[in-house]
Amino acid sequence: MIIVLKPNTPSDQIDHIVARIHELGLRTDVSRGVKRTIIGVIGEEDVLRNAPLRAIPGVEEVVPILKPFKLASREFQAEDSVFDLGCGVTVGGGALAMIAGPCAIEGEEILLEIATSVKAAGANILRGGAYKPRTSPYSFQGLGEDGLKILRNVGDHLHMPVVTEVMDPRQVDLIDRYTDIFQIGARNMQNFNLLSEVGQTKRPVLLKRGMSAGVTDLLMSAEYILAGGNKRVILCERGIRSFDNSTRNLLDLAIVPNVKGLSHLPIIVDPSHATGRPDLIPAMSLAAVAAGADGVHIEVHSCPEKAMSDGPQALLPHQYRELMQQIRELAGLFHKTIPAARGVAP
Amino acid sequence: MIIVLKPNTPSDQIDHIVARIHELGLRTDVSRGVKRTIIGVIGEEDVLRNAPLRAIPGVEEVVPILKPFKLASREFQAEDSVFDLGCGVTVGGGALAMIAGPCAIEGEEILLEIATSVKAAGANILRGGAYKPRTSPYSFQGLGEDGLKILRNVGDHLHMPVVTEVMDPRQVDLIDRYTDIFQIGARNMQNFNLLSEVGQTKRPVLLKRGMSAGVTDLLMSAEYILAGGNKRVILCERGIRSFDNSTRNLLDLAIVPNVKGLSHLPIIVDPSHATGRPDLIPAMSLAAVAAGADGVHIEVHSCPEKAMSDGPQALLPHQYRELMQQIRELAGLFHKTIPAARGVAP
Amino acid sequence: MIIVLKPNTPSDQIDHIVARIHELGLRTDVSRGVKRTIIGVIGEEDVLRNAPLRAIPGVEEVVPILKPFKLASREFQAEDSVFDLGCGVTVGGGALAMIAGPCAIEGEEILLEIATSVKAAGANILRGGAYKPRTSPYSFQGLGEDGLKILRNVGDHLHMPVVTEVMDPRQVDLIDRYTDIFQIGARNMQNFNLLSEVGQTKRPVLLKRGMSAGVTDLLMSAEYILAGGNKRVILCERGIRSFDNSTRNLLDLAIVPNVKGLSHLPIIVDPSHATGRPDLIPAMSLAAVAAGADGVHIEVHSCPEKAMSDGPQALLPHQYRELMQQIRELAGLFHKTIPAARGVAP
Amino acid sequence: MIIVLKPNTPSDQIDHIVARIHELGLRTDVSRGVKRTIIGVIGEEDVLRNAPLRAIPGVEEVVPILKPFKLASREFQAEDSVFDLGCGVTVGGGALAMIAGPCAIEGEEILLEIATSVKAAGANILRGGAYKPRTSPYSFQGLGEDGLKILRNVGDHLHMPVVTEVMDPRQVDLIDRYTDIFQIGARNMQNFNLLSEVGQTKRPVLLKRGMSAGVTDLLMSAEYILAGGNKRVILCERGIRSFDNSTRNLLDLAIVPNVKGLSHLPIIVDPSHATGRPDLIPAMSLAAVAAGADGVHIEVHSCPEKAMSDGPQALLPHQYRELMQQIRELAGLFHKTIPAARGVAP
Repeated sequence: MIIVLKPNTPSDQIDHIVARIHELGLRTDVSRGVKRTIIGVIGEEDVLRNAPLRAIPGVEEVVPILKPFKLASREFQAEDSVFDLGCGVTVGGGALAMIAGPCAIEGEEILLEIATSVKAAGANILRGGAYKPRTSPYSFQGLGEDGLKILRNVGDHLHMPVVTEVMDPRQVDLIDRYTDIFQIGARNMQNFNLLSEVGQTKRPVLLKRGMSAGVTDLLMSAEYILAGGNKRVILCERGIRSFDNSTRNLLDLAIVPNVKGLSHLPIIVDPSHATGRPDLIPAMSLAAVAAGADGVHIEVHSCPEKAMSDGPQALLPHQYRELMQQIRELAGLFHKTIPAARGVAP
Repeated sequence: MIIVLKPNTPSDQIDHIVARIHELGLRTDVSRGVKRTIIGVIGEEDVLRNAPLRAIPGVEEVVPILKPFKLASREFQAEDSVFDLGCGVTVGGGALAMIAGPCAIEGEEILLEIATSVKAAGANILRGGAYKPRTSPYSFQGLGEDGLKILRNVGDHLHMPVVTEVMDPRQVDLIDRYTDIFQIGARNMQNFNLLSEVGQTKRPVLLKRGMSAGVTDLLMSAEYILAGGNKRVILCERGIRSFDNSTRNLLDLAIVPNVKGLSHLPIIVDPSHATGRPDLIPAMSLAAVAAGADGVHIEVHSCPEKAMSDGPQALLPHQYRELMQQIRELAGLFHKTIPAARGVAP
Repeated sequence: MIIVLKPNTPSDQIDHIVARIHELGLRTDVSRGVKRTIIGVIGEEDVLRNAPLRAIPGVEEVVPILKPFKLASREFQAEDSVFDLGCGVTVGGGALAMIAGPCAIEGEEILLEIATSVKAAGANILRGGAYKPRTSPYSFQGLGEDGLKILRNVGDHLHMPVVTEVMDPRQVDLIDRYTDIFQIGARNMQNFNLLSEVGQTKRPVLLKRGMSAGVTDLLMSAEYILAGGNKRVILCERGIRSFDNSTRNLLDLAIVPNVKGLSHLPIIVDPSHATGRPDLIPAMSLAAVAAGADGVHIEVHSCPEKAMSDGPQALLPHQYRELMQQIRELAGLFHKTIPAARGVAP
Repeated sequence: MIIVLKPNTPSDQIDHIVARIHELGLRTDVSRGVKRTIIGVIGEEDVLRNAPLRAIPGVEEVVPILKPFKLASREFQAEDSVFDLGCGVTVGGGALAMIAGPCAIEGEEILLEIATSVKAAGANILRGGAYKPRTSPYSFQGLGEDGLKILRNVGDHLHMPVVTEVMDPRQVDLIDRYTDIFQIGARNMQNFNLLSEVGQTKRPVLLKRGMSAGVTDLLMSAEYILAGGNKRVILCERGIRSFDNSTRNLLDLAIVPNVKGLSHLPIIVDPSHATGRPDLIPAMSLAAVAAGADGVHIEVHSCPEKAMSDGPQALLPHQYRELMQQIRELAGLFHKTIPAARGVAP
């Protein structure tokens, strides 16, 4: 950590700051420049994070040097994490998670129809929401446990691992009985109690980036889960808020190689929520794979105009099939594989 | 609701769309322009919100006309809401809520010292966090129930209503036993289950705007609380994410008159979290009152450099006292009052 | 255009609005809903753009239906524009413009060295700045006409078309004597006089997206050039301002398919300025091609640490060569070609 | 300047970096931490700005310590700048510039009518555009020199200094003959050639903040004008791009005290362009004055529905009169004055 002092900070203020740092068991290196004095702090930076140095008179700026995340960092683990997600599906290390399904679970028949088609197209994980975070209290909020049962049945029937969103720490035990993977939605990326709670389960967690989260914020939220002992966190870019309303959110694909440099965790991309526009999803899915993403998360519905949630952003099954064809070729070019879901669900 | 069709949409597609709308019990008004056809929908727009019209072939855009919030709207209640918050303190209708206190509750002695000074300066509500939403799992997370007890004791002792943050639906009952007002933090503004839960209590709720929430998003989150039967929601602007990192967040004061036009709910301003800089807090507090805010929320700490959370953004007690002097004069100019906290807490 | 009226707008106000529209030679379709009245305007919408309808009492919102750009739109020209850029290089219709070179022209020897290496790697257009838009008046501002001469010489020598930035309408004639393609930088995207001026030349224009420009803003700026009679506009995405400062700007790749839907103009991507980080440029270049971009613009310098402008974001020649290898394979997969620069410059 | 090295940077890389810095005539202070080595650079930091240190192998981050602006900084001039603007009007040091008038100059009669009413209400500077930066090439672009003549006549007649926008370096001489103050619009804030050009005139410059400019960007653009020898720069906050489209832009009032800390230059606020909504302008004008702004810039039109540009955001003359009444009272509370425009124009 580097502490930049204000111009002309008097000696007694400098001594006061240095004394504070020594109290914390750290060493200092005071560098007097032509215009400013700078104090380098030598030792375990974490001790300082809680100490509000910026509040001390004379301090102009405090510049952290070390990253605040540990377990999520490449420095902690150099090689890519590779996880088993069930039914022979892995993610990371060149294996792509192709997650597909409707926004909300609406019934067994329709889910089975969609799931059958996306599996045939090459999807290896089935998604569907039973508890939906809706901005309006008057909108359809999901089928709840009935939806979970349907999802489990369809996943078992087709031998596909399933993923569904958990919104509330009180739902963790219930959902744990039905799902293979927990999803934490963008709006809950900094719901720290929920993160801690899924951090104590044994299920992989799909952690979606919050709409105004920077890359460090995302990795710090992953750190909450990892710190609880759960090592299987999959990050997911799904668009951030921006000024251009021609798309629902702004897809930030540069976060993919950015995360790859900072962390060993896999990161996938959700172009459905990012763009909200089916006409842009194919191009953005291909771009995601080319950018090095470990998977793509796409909403598919066989009758978007009757979907109970987010219908307009879903691909039709035949559009998904065509897209998967292209993704497979592209994955081949980059020596990536799309593991087939098979066998008995875990 | 207005449905704009793509250029040259064939008649059978138009008929299909019209038929869908009629199925929902609504009437249509089809207007054929030179380049496009537009369908006006006449009737209860809410029925349509769940129907994903944009997914129907031929539809280019769907333009909602009515606001999605009801109970929070000025159309539902024309006059300003005025709430009793305890100890003679009200908010709304010209009465200002002056909330002050430390970021986190650290101990009874220090809280009493800070609270005594801010009350003497004119603050009428005491704040302090017992459960802290920290971006790092390794940071101080608050004193928990011990902190709540301290807050209650100090509030009772000084006859001030108290406000503290609730982060988890499982904490609602516990915190309800100690606090006068629930605070929902920015990161939980769209934690819909938490909103529903406090919506079923009888305590006022201070709802902070999320970092990437628009004015409609904020009012929709208030709607969740109101829909649960709890009418006492106080909105709070606390800065949004922006590209300029010279301040912690970007204070959006225009939301104050914007909300006043759309809603009857009171709205206060938190310049401490918005700017993160004590040197900007006084000017922004005065600007907030001049903009028509129903109160100001300011962090105060008697020793910011020893604060366990967010010390650098706190005002010192004497700075708060000087600022309150100016706020009082300004409030007088605008015929606003700052009710004194007194008597026995409710 | 649709005019949404406030609830309970009195009849005389409605009549007044209708009369105004009729004055402009347009027809109206008044649709009285349960809660609101809506007026559809039938006729040439452009007439209305200058008429500030929102200022008329009773009007709540004015919703335009038609796009404000004409010559740039797909509706004006359905098939992709394909341009000749000189030396056998074309862009659009499956041909990729691979622009490479240093940020600033620093001398003939170094430019020739860089240009030779990028041409050997497959670049088909040479870039270099002679006039640099620098945020500080004390920074290196470019070599001016001396730089232009160097660029022309190197371009002629290697038979590569060259592109350089024009910042001032007074420079257009001078730069026109040396360059093959004008570049309009992001900061000048809405310098409308400059746009008009290059719109009257016969040279292709590389128009970079402004840092806070939406897709419509970008296409409207292209419209200024097209309206002057110059049909050869190449759009360029180079990142927008965002809250996450881990990259210099935020690369918005979704604008590529978004533009393709709205316009016939080619669009290329500049990952160098977008990310400002050489470690992210390869992944973002590949993603750009996968997203459907008509080219990639990359800064290359053989000694970034001695570059006079933007050194840290440049690729080294051998990094560019490796990247071009991958881009070529990817282009092949999508049936795109990279025309070789050859023969005599135009 | 502080140079943070990557973990485990080898000694020879460190030596290479140190050697580079010494070549530039600067001294170094190398501080070897537990995890990283940090190099403090002692001497004139500006020498380093052009040297792309981040490109040197081993360098992770370069942290500048000194501000890049000089002449605009408080360190260069401690006391507030106070300027004479003509007709007895000054700005800065407690004197408020109250700029009012229509968006565009449309004719002498209408301008005189508006100007007479705003002067009677207390405005001391008249604004009006003769050259309009319009996003569409098909929109009304202003009356040009005819407009300038009208503005001059009305200003002379009423003894008010006038301000009008200059968009192009080629217009500087012409506009200089008619105006008292140059306005640089938000879209041209980084049109560096234009800034240099007005920096060589003797007229005060009203410099509007760009839509994606941070506070440092704004002050650097002011630096361009100051470096040319023109000391009279008035900054103007007019809203930045944000994600919430309920207002046209996002008014950032915190920049007012932020600038006051960093610079001696006066800063005013334009709530008309910032919000684009007349219903929000009064509250935001009052908030601006309470925040410490040195003036307010408001669009006023006597018949907004017939205005040729930006009508919907203009106040009516009687609304402006009522607002000025409130502003005067508020200014009194803060011991600010609104100099009356009088006598002969300069």
